[in-house]
Parts: sequence; structure tokens; C-alpha cells
Amino acid sequence: MTTAPWRDPALPADARVTDLLSRMTLEEKTAQLYGAWVGAAADGDGVAPLQREMASGHDWDELIAHGLGQLTRSFGTAPVEPDAGARSLARAQRRIAAANRFGIPAVAHEECLAGFTAWRATAYPVPLAWGASFDPELVEEMGRRIGRGLRAAGVHQGLAPVLDVVRDPRWGRVEETIGEDPYLVGTVGTAYVRGLESAGVVATLKHFAGYAASAGARNLAPVRAGVRELADVTLPPFEMALREGGARSVMAAYTETDGVPASADPRLLTGLLRQEWGFTGTVVADYFGIGFLRTLHRVAADEAEAARLALAAGVDVELPAPDCYGPPLVAAVREGRVPEALVDRAARRVLLQKCELGLLDEDWRPEPDGPLDLDPARNRALARRLAEESVVLLDNPGGLLPLAPGTRIAVVGPRAADPLAMLGCYSFPSHVLADHPGVPLGIDVPTVLDSLRAEFPDAKVTSAEGCGVSDPDTAGFAEAVARAAEADVCVAVLGDRAGLFGRGTSGEGCDVSDLRLPGVQAELLDALVATGVPVVLVLLTGRPYALGRWHGRLGAVVQAFFPGEEGGPAVAGVLSGRVGPSGRLPVSVPREPGGQPWTYLQPPLGLAGEVSSLDPTPLYPFGHGRTYTEFAWEDFEGSAAGIPTDGSYDLSLTVRNTGDRAGTEVVQLYLHDPVASVTRPDVRLIGYRRLDLSPGAARRLTFRFHADLSSFTDCTGARVVEPGELELRLGPSSGEVRHRARLRLTGPVRVVGAERRLRCDVLP
Amino acid sequence: MTTAPWRDPALPADARVTDLLSRMTLEEKTAQLYGAWVGAAADGDGVAPLQREMASGHDWDELIAHGLGQLTRSFGTAPVEPDAGARSLARAQRRIAAANRFGIPAVAHEECLAGFTAWRATAYPVPLAWGASFDPELVEEMGRRIGRGLRAAGVHQGLAPVLDVVRDPRWGRVEETIGEDPYLVGTVGTAYVRGLESAGVVATLKHFAGYAASAGARNLAPVRAGVRELADVTLPPFEMALREGGARSVMAAYTETDGVPASADPRLLTGLLRQEWGFTGTVVADYFGIGFLRTLHRVAADEAEAARLALAAGVDVELPAPDCYGPPLVAAVREGRVPEALVDRAARRVLLQKCELGLLDEDWRPEPDGPLDLDPARNRALARRLAEESVVLLDNPGGLLPLAPGTRIAVVGPRAADPLAMLGCYSFPSHVLADHPGVPLGIDVPTVLDSLRAEFPDAKVTSAEGCGVSDPDTAGFAEAVARAAEADVCVAVLGDRAGLFGRGTSGEGCDVSDLRLPGVQAELLDALVATGVPVVLVLLTGRPYALGRWHGRLGAVVQAFFPGEEGGPAVAGVLSGRVGPSGRLPVSVPREPGGQPWTYLQPPLGLAGEVSSLDPTPLYPFGHGRTYTEFAWEDFEGSAAGIPTDGSYDLSLTVRNTGDRAGTEVVQLYLHDPVASVTRPDVRLIGYRRLDLSPGAARRLTFRFHADLSSFTDCTGARVVEPGELELRLGPSSGEVRHRARLRLTGPVRVVGAERRLRCDVLP
Repeated sequence: MTTAPWRDPALPADARVTDLLSRMTLEEKTAQLYGAWVGAAADGDGVAPLQREMASGHDWDELIAHGLGQLTRSFGTAPVEPDAGARSLARAQRRIAAANRFGIPAVAHEECLAGFTAWRATAYPVPLAWGASFDPELVEEMGRRIGRGLRAAGVHQGLAPVLDVVRDPRWGRVEETIGEDPYLVGTVGTAYVRGLESAGVVATLKHFAGYAASAGARNLAPVRAGVRELADVTLPPFEMALREGGARSVMAAYTETDGVPASADPRLLTGLLRQEWGFTGTVVADYFGIGFLRTLHRVAADEAEAARLALAAGVDVELPAPDCYGPPLVAAVREGRVPEALVDRAARRVLLQKCELGLLDEDWRPEPDGPLDLDPARNRALARRLAEESVVLLDNPGGLLPLAPGTRIAVVGPRAADPLAMLGCYSFPSHVLADHPGVPLGIDVPTVLDSLRAEFPDAKVTSAEGCGVSDPDTAGFAEAVARAAEADVCVAVLGDRAGLFGRGTSGEGCDVSDLRLPGVQAELLDALVATGVPVVLVLLTGRPYALGRWHGRLGAVVQAFFPGEEGGPAVAGVLSGRVGPSGRLPVSVPREPGGQPWTYLQPPLGLAGEVSSLDPTPLYPFGHGRTYTEFAWEDFEGSAAGIPTDGSYDLSLTVRNTGDRAGTEVVQLYLHDPVASVTRPDVRLIGYRRLDLSPGAARRLTFRFHADLSSFTDCTGARVVEPGELELRLGPSSGEVRHRARLRLTGPVRVVGAERRLRCDVLP
Repeated sequence: MTTAPWRDPALPADARVTDLLSRMTLEEKTAQLYGAWVGAAADGDGVAPLQREMASGHDWDELIAHGLGQLTRSFGTAPVEPDAGARSLARAQRRIAAANRFGIPAVAHEECLAGFTAWRATAYPVPLAWGASFDPELVEEMGRRIGRGLRAAGVHQGLAPVLDVVRDPRWGRVEETIGEDPYLVGTVGTAYVRGLESAGVVATLKHFAGYAASAGARNLAPVRAGVRELADVTLPPFEMALREGGARSVMAAYTETDGVPASADPRLLTGLLRQEWGFTGTVVADYFGIGFLRTLHRVAADEAEAARLALAAGVDVELPAPDCYGPPLVAAVREGRVPEALVDRAARRVLLQKCELGLLDEDWRPEPDGPLDLDPARNRALARRLAEESVVLLDNPGGLLPLAPGTRIAVVGPRAADPLAMLGCYSFPSHVLADHPGVPLGIDVPTVLDSLRAEFPDAKVTSAEGCGVSDPDTAGFAEAVARAAEADVCVAVLGDRAGLFGRGTSGEGCDVSDLRLPGVQAELLDALVATGVPVVLVLLTGRPYALGRWHGRLGAVVQAFFPGEEGGPAVAGVLSGRVGPSGRLPVSVPREPGGQPWTYLQPPLGLAGEVSSLDPTPLYPFGHGRTYTEFAWEDFEGSAAGIPTDGSYDLSLTVRNTGDRAGTEVVQLYLHDPVASVTRPDVRLIGYRRLDLSPGAARRLTFRFHADLSSFTDCTGARVVEPGELELRLGPSSGEVRHRARLRLTGPVRVVGAERRLRCDVLP
């Protein structure tokens, strides 16, 4: 018997898939275009379609009769021992393969934003913390570790990273983003992608595109944005993660921008993504996003029309269930409403990916290689290091920090003693365990209180909750105040509870109407400050909160976001001085709770003060973060000040730790474009380098700025490098300039495209 | 001696201007393109360039040596007796005419939004109140009265109306707008234009375009909007006011949209405005707006470049001073940086308008015809009627209103006894007198307290301020609470103080970060409610404020915006029942202070509840307003349910006053488009009719809906009427449907343009 060409690993993937497609029925092809939402049963025994109603009531046998494109959330809906989950997934895959004529299994996918979203898997810091680290290398290593865990468990595709650029800090999903600057999001997000993909796992860039600008910060609300904002702020991280990170999948966003739903936008999903950027992977729907074309966007009258629009736009895979790409699509093709070529186009992309993943090979086997440990010491060490690097010291005016060993410490606040305070919404405990009361977290998550007790073994550490995260009860204030009053210093641990859809104060669907601290935490902080005992405010939050009310009244302010399972020791280490604070703000911290949306990427008009009663300037600017040491920025040199519009320019400096403690400087390069044909942000980040320096040590750096980095989208919609003056500003934050270089770009306007340089090399 | 052709009134204007231009030097032509900011001195003796520094230090003789395009704010910068002001303006005009070779005077312009912005002139209700009246005919009459006053005083051009559509209620200039719906803004604004133009005064549509969407509601902040929002929400009122109102001037907005400043946007100011819409009048700059191209937008390196960009885009007149269109422009033309043809194009437009205004005629004379009375009884009666029609009864759950004659009334709150509480920012007292302490208002403005005493002569009326508008002092609460406790009913008069740039809580530059009542007024209201005495909340505000906190706890809620000099008696009349409340909300009233921006024009995604922790629905919807009577909506009939995409559809109903009081119903027609190729607002206003009905009276109405009214901007940027289902909804607000008609548009997609129908006729 001859092996069919599509089974022949010696043939090119394209030829194999062409052969395979030619053998498939319409039902078999469309079956590759959707997923099914299954869950691994807690006992690991068989696949339990736990959310069968979400799979539109499809019968499981019927569902897989023609094949199945994707298996969704095998681990992410219930606590299951990893080994049992992996075995269960393997059995499901065997069953799927056995049920279709070609023996093709599904692409198994899972959430993995800040770690594999599975019980007992490492919970890393959230993306906002990655942004704060300004350390792409470390994030890449994390991505690789996450990828290896997924791969070992039989998962092929990870539904991460989120490359949305923050446009409104009130949005609940801010914690899932890397920050408010496209360059930071792009570079750090690309590192994550490299890590994940290096483990053989398909990275999924999401949400493509515009979601973060949902009006009024309400989840899924329409986006009011123009083409330039999209091209110059929203899209660059995706472009970088595709070009430099090699991501193989993109998720279409729920959102609609200026009336056009992303999932029905061929210009976005095909024109830009594939034709301009050359993407060849798969575009997957966000969950139920294709059906939303009918129900929430109302650009389709029925499921078949929704399927037609999405397929034509370029959405290849419907998730989580075949609501539109199942029977409605088959019928529509039969009726001539949808060209079969569209089905073939999408099926080819899916099958090419399956081919690449080895899922079309005869030697494919889904069973795990051995026992799984999804939270080994190596992961925890990495989680610890990233947590340490992401803690931002916002203020320490009197040098209260680091605390002396014998200090009497009152640790108060609703986030001090709750392990969930350390974790983001997409960590397994926050995301899933709320539906499974009584199930243990599955991982060890020391709290800030635990960690401070461990960090200060000789100190008297007392504690009080003070109040809940969001409830209005102030009955606990008195005890908290009493504890504070007895201590030398009060560590107030305040912030968010991450959760889904209203279960938390941060996370998907947990949007806020302003940036006041949740509940009565602001009042608790007022009461603690009123004691006169110095207060160290530690914020475990999924977004920035307005801190103007306490400016100048706090002993120190530490912004830690959700630092993950090792975040407690990281925060405690910063407070003791064992860890030098080294994070920098990936989002601005505002003075006032209202006045949103605002991010630092403002053209001059967005910074003009006198014309409005509202002060637009932040309390702590993007990029800000203090240390326990001092740095000198010396021997600044720039190359020749005139370069062509396709030239590059070097600027060099030496950074020296002039203090007596080891510390970290994050050298940030901002571009100021004094005059352009459209308005430009006053400054935007175009390069950075994190430097760990022991006392007295120095490091010389050269930033190689290429004129491409000054490109923007002009009035005609073209991306151009315009001749004229530019100013490069080096500083420790977006709000402070240490050195500036003025240069002149000469020559004609250059139209640049997907070949242009996206990043500033930093040498050595 | 032969008369030059340009002096010959028998020749067509175009020929006259061609001749004149051919005789002018470059300096003389550019002199027509700018204004000078002068003020009429208080003693009426000569022209006092009060703000000479704002005119960039130009010497007055030098300034007018080559002519002068416009004279700005002759009345609007200092209190001057109208007669003296008019004489002073006339002398300035004589001097300007005498100083140039052609004897051409300036176009005198003045602010006139809610009345001629001059001392002793009628202060009408603000535009938000016009919107609340849903009565374009009355607004047209007001426009005519304003125009006549301007004309009598020697003013040719009025810098009104504001046709910005509210996009964020926090913006300070919301009071200057007509509301959050383009159809309401368009129809009411067009009526104002008709009135003003019918008096021979040039109406100036502003701000063209996008200003109201300033990000974060900060005045002048950049606008994030796409082409569809601009085309379908922002621009329609301008199109209607040009096509149907015949406005002869347009003011370029300060703002930048998606990076493109309006003043440097040829697609907006020339492509759309002139080529597509056929506009032939003048485009004037907002004050200093051309210079802002250099300083705030940074698309120009110097004044000459700013002049070139603005002139090329289509800004014909720089205001208020020749910062860019003066010497910098002349030099730039001489250097070949700016084509002289651009100067000629703008000068032609200015001179055509001067020709039309008779300013090129030999018999031109600037002296007033006789003594001026800018606030005659006729104006006051009109101001009264419009105020009465604009008071919105938001709630009256137990029928507390109207108040019985002998009721003991405590009138409390910071807005009860201040005449300025009745006036908007652009009224002369609020706009100018703040700079002239001690000068009397110049007009009689009875307060709500005055008016209630007059309205209830037999009642015991007590009063207390309670607190200031915006200061934090609560010392006055006790007295206010005491007054309330002694009374049968407490009328709490709360709200804004209108002013410029931080002097007020509403008005230009007085933006707010959320929709909490200013200062401690919310706390005062809490304290009053706590007395148990029924509270009638009367709001004199420039924007909607969040009222969810008191929902169900107030005896009645009356929203009056700034009702003008006769607003006190109007409010008192509503409270007594002498006036039936008949206003309807031109802006939604939200539940919560945060979560902005939001307006009612939401596609389904903007209304989706479960996906976010934030409830997007308003407390009182757009169009809402209660009455003291009841109406039956009877005998609803629709014509044939299938019409072509260029057809029309009649729907008729009879409205009957079934109560025992005269009252007003505002029948509102909304369009719901179930499925379209881009997302559409769930409902939007497309027709309305205000009906005053005595008890038992009925009126039959027919709304003639034309398919053009369903048009929108599709993915390609074309305005189209799409075939398919539509639903027409008749209701007393956007939140309530009384009758619905489903119809089907048949035939091909129709691309429509400037010829399409813009309004729904209501018959008879």
C-alpha cells in the first residue's frame, strides 16, 4: 500500500496539504475551522465536556465525526492534576483522530498569559510587571519555560501574549497588557513570543486590534480611533512580534473600531496582516467573536452571514465552538452564499499549521513523555527574578526604605495576607478556582505578610486587614490604625482582587469608572497616614491608581502590580533592601481619579495646561522608578548631526553607579519630533537598556538610532520618514531628560514599509 | 470721473471683486485676511485696543494702513453703553476706511451665542436649553432678534452657533452645544442660523470640526475619532446649517483629529466643505488657531509655515490678530514660499462677503440708525418663552409638583440667589464682567429665589445658601438643613457657575474630570434629603450631572441648564404649575459620575451589559422629560412596508392630551437599523415634533421618513442607503417605544451625497 502524499513527511508541507484538501469533503474541511470547548475531568478519566452548553449543545460524537480543528481549554476550566489532565487530553486526541477518516487530531490550545493556565502550574507576574522589568531577555526565558510546560502537557498553541497597548487605564484588562507604550509592548511582547515559539508552541497575538481603546474603558465597548492611532500606536507591537518573534497565530479582537468589527475587517486581517506583513499562520476568533458579528455588532443577520463575513475577512478558526463555522457555514456553502474557496483558504492555513506541528504525521502520538511538574524550582526562581525586577519604587522621599532589620512593622490592608493578591486574572487560581470553592490554589503563593515575617525574622511584625478590597465596611479601620500606631512603620498593602466579569476589581470585564482605589482603601490609607507613623504604601494592582491625594504624605510608595507566586518575597526583599528596586513604570500614575482616558503618548495639545481646568500631567510619569543608589550619566557623545532619511546615528554614554549599593538603571531613549506633517507625541520611547551595576561599576552603551524609527503615518496614510530636525532624549523616565542630541534628517521624504527597522540596537 | 467697476453696485459681485483684487497690492490683499482685536472704550470715546498685547503689539495706525479684514469683539471685552459702543465702532470703521486706498471698512464681528455678547443685551437661555425645547421655530425667532440687535449696532458677523455634537459631557463647552444628537443639533442649530441670517448677519458655524470629542474632555485636547464618527456624527449639523440655513461663514476648530489639525486640513476645509458641499462663504480661524499650528500642533516651524498650511487648507481669515497672515505671510509670498494665488483665493472670498454686506458701496455708512435697546420687552418675552420651554422635569414620582400655593418653601443651595446662576459662559456678564468687578450686570436677571417669592406670594419662603458652588466649606449646611426642616418642601437649587478658563465649573476651559456635582453640593443634597422633608432638586447646570445617588429619594427633579435672564420665572412657573414642564433632555443624565465618555448614540456593543462591571445605561435617557398631564398615542398607521432605497414611508399617529391640564408632548422618531454593513447606533433621532395640547385636545401627525435618512458612511467611506430591514420607533424619549414600524428597503445600495434629504418632514 502506498502512503498518500499528504502523509509523506518528505514532501513539502504545501504539497501535503494540497493533497489532503483534495481528499476532504466540505464537512471535513469546515471541521478543521472550529474548536470545541472541553475540560479535563478532575479524575482525569475521559474528556468531560464541562461546558457543553457553551459548545451550543453539540453532541460530542457528532461534533468530531468529520474531524476537529481545535480543542479549547483542556486544562483551563477545572482543577485537574497535570498528569491526569495530559492523559485526558491525549485520550481526547486519540478519540478525535480515530473519528475522522484521516486520523487528524486537533490543535490543543490553552491560555498561558502569565503562565500555563492549569492547576499547579507556575503563576508568573502579569504582563504589566513584565513591562515594568524592561527586561525582554528574562521575559523570553519565561516564555520558553511556559512553552515547555504546555508542550509537555500536549498543548500546541498558547493564547498569549496580549499586545494591546493601554489607551485607558480604567479598562479591566490593563493587567494583561505590557503597558502604554508600543515600543515597550512590542519589544517585551516579542520576547515572550520568541520564548514560547522556541519551545515549539504556537504563540497567539491578541487582540488584533484596537481592543484596549474600548470607549469609557468598558470591556468590548466600541473603539473611537482613527487610522493613524491604529497604525502608529495599536499595530506596531503586532508587526514586531510577527516579524521578529515569528508568532504563528493572531486572534481577531472582539472590538469594532469606528464602526468596523475587527472580525469582519478584510483590510485588517488580510490586507494588512497577510498582504502587507506577509503573515502565513492562522487567524483565530476570540471566543464567540464570530457570533458577536450577529448579536453584538449586528453586521450579520444570521450565523451563516457572520461566518461569511469572518471567513472573507480572514478569520480562519472559530472558537470555542462551531456556532457559525459548523452547520451554518456548510449550508451556506451548499446554497452558494459562501464560496468554497474561502473554506479552502482557511482550511489550508489550519492544516499547514497542523503539518508543521507534526499532527499529520503517522508517528504522531499525543501521550505525555513522562510525569509533569508544572511548577519546578527553576520556574519559581524565574518567577522570583521577574517579580524582583518588576517592583517599582515610586517614591522614597526621606529614605525610609530600605527598612532596618529590627523595625516594628504593622502590615495592614486587604491585600497583605491574601495569596490571590499576588495573581492576575488569567492565573489559574483567579481565573478558574472561583468556580471551585474549597479547592486549594495548587501552588505555594507566599503573601506580603508571610514574606515580611520571613524577611524580618527579628522584627515585631503585626497585621490587620483594615477593610476588604471592595466592600464599604470600615469596621476594621480601628484595629488597623491601632496596629500602625504601635509600630515604627506601617506597610499598607492595598490594591486589587483580580477576577473575571465583576468578580474582581481588575481583570477581564472588571472595568472601573475612575482610578480611585477600590472600596474604602483610600479612606483606610488616610486613617493610617493620620497616625503619623510613616506609611509604606505597597500597591498590588492591575492598573495604575490615582495617588495625588497622598503625594508628600507617605514614607514610601511601592508599585508592584500582580507579581506572581514569588511576588511576596520580591516585595519583602525590596522593603528590606535585599533586592534593589529596579522596575520602571509601564503606565503613568495619575494625580486625580478622573479625567481619563490619558496616556503619556500625547502630542503638545494633549499636554497644554492653561486651556483647561484639568491638569493633564501625571504624578509619576511613564518610565519612572527610583532606586537605593545613584547613577551618573557620563561622557555623552553623538555622531554627526546630519544624517540622510535612511541613515543612522549613534549616541553613547557611560552609566556609573556612584552609590554604595548595587542597583539597576534603565536608560531610556525618547524621540521628540519638533515639527512634522501630522501631530506627533511630544516624546515616545524608541529604545532602552536595563543595566545592573554594582557600586562603582560603569558601563558604556551605544544606542544606534535609525531614521526608520522616526517614521509615522502621514496624511495620505503612508508610513514616512520625513526630513527635518529631530531630538533624541536620554533619560531615566519620560519625564526627565539627562542628555539630548539634535540631529537633522536630510534628503527626500522616504516611504517605508514592512522592511523598515523596528528597533534601536543598543551596543554592546 | 468714472466709477471704478468694483464700486459699481450694478455689476455682479464677482466682477467687482475681480476688479478690486487687480488693483490691490499684496499688503492690501493680506490685510483683508486678518482681524484686529479692539474694544469699545467704556466712555465710547474712540477705539481702545484694550488687548493690544494680544494683537501682537501691532501699532494701530500701522495695522490698518493697508486695510483691515475684520474688527473683532468691539463690544465683547468691556462694559460699554450700547449706543456709545456703536458710535465707537462706527468711528473705528471710518478710521479703517479712511486709512486704506479703497475706503473699505472691516467686517465687524462679535460673539452672540445666547444673545449679543454686549453689556445690557438680552441673555437668552444657552444652546443646551434650546436643545431641550425641541422647538426650532422659537430658536429661529431668537436668532432673528439677536441678529437685529447686532445689525443695529454695526456688527456684520456673529460668531455663532456652536454645532459641536456632545461626545463627552465633562467638556466645559457642553453648555454651548445643543446636545448629543446630530439631528437635534442640526435642526435647532439651522433654525438659529436662519434667524441670524434673516437679519442680514453672517452666521459662523463652529467649531469645524471635532472639537467636542477632545480626549478626556480637556479643552483643546486631541480628538481620537475615525472617519465614520466624523462623517456620521460630527459633520451632519454643519451640512444641514449650510444647506438649509445658508450660513455664510465657518470657523475652523482648534482641535486635531487623529493627528490632523482642522486648520491645516485641506480635505476638511476645501475638499468636503467647498468641493463637496459647495460652500462659498468664508472660513475664519478660531482665535489664535493659526498660530497654534506652530505652538500647539507643531505641524509648522514658524508663522509663515503656519500661514501657508492654513491658507492652503482653506482658512481665509486669521483671528483675532495678524500673527501669521500679516507680515509673515507677506514675506513668505515675496520669498516664493506661499503662492500668491492662495492669498487671492482667500481675499476674493472676504471681499465677496464685504460686497454682499454692502461694505464696498459708496453709500456705506457705519453710524447707527438710532438709539439702541438691546434688551427690549419683546426680547425678554422671547427669552421667557424659550426658558419655559426648556425646563425639563426629570422626575416627579409622587406628584409633589406642582406645589400648592400656600406651601412653606425653603429655597436653599448656592444657585438659588445668584443671578449669574442663570447665565452661560458666553453671556456678557459671565464672559466679560468677571474682569470688571463692581460693574452691574446691565440686565435684570431674577433669581430662582426672587422668582419663587413672586410666584408664591402667599407662601412662606425662606432661604439659605448652604454652601458655595465649588468651595469645600460645609459650614452653611446647618442653616440650610434648619430651613428645610421647618418647611413643607425644600427646593434645592444646585449647579454650576459659568465662566472662562477655570473661573467657573462650566464654560470654556472649565472641564471636569467626572460628573459629580461641583464642590460639596452632593453632600448638601444628602443632608437636605436626610431631613425627610421632600426635596425638589432644581439644577442650573451647563452639563448633565450624575444623579444615580439620589434616585428614588427626591420629591422631584428639575433640570434647567442655564435658562437665561428670564429663567427664574420660568423655573418658578414650572414649580407652581403656571407653566407646564415641556423640555426634553438633549443629553443623557448618567447614573454614576465616572465611566465617561458616553452618549446615547451607542451601537449594540456600547450597550452590552454583562461583559463589563460598568453599567452603560443612563439614569434618564436622551429625549426624556415628564409633564403634569398624560398623553395617549392613538391610531398609529404606517404606509406600505416595502419601499425602494430612494423611497419614502409615512407613519401617522394621533396624540391626545388625556389629562386635565394643558401640556406638551414631544413626539420623537428614532431609527433602529437591525443589520448594516458597519455597526450602527441602536437608535438615533431622525424626526420630532413638539405639540402643545390643551386638555382633551388631539393632533394628528404624519412623519414622512425618506430612505435617505437611513444613510451612513460605509466601509469604503461612501455615504450609502443600504437595502434591508429598518425599524422606525416612535416614543416620548430614546428609552421608550410607543409604536414601531418595520419596513424593508428594496433595490440596490444607493450612494448618496449632498443632494440627499436631511430631515424628516412632519405633516401637517
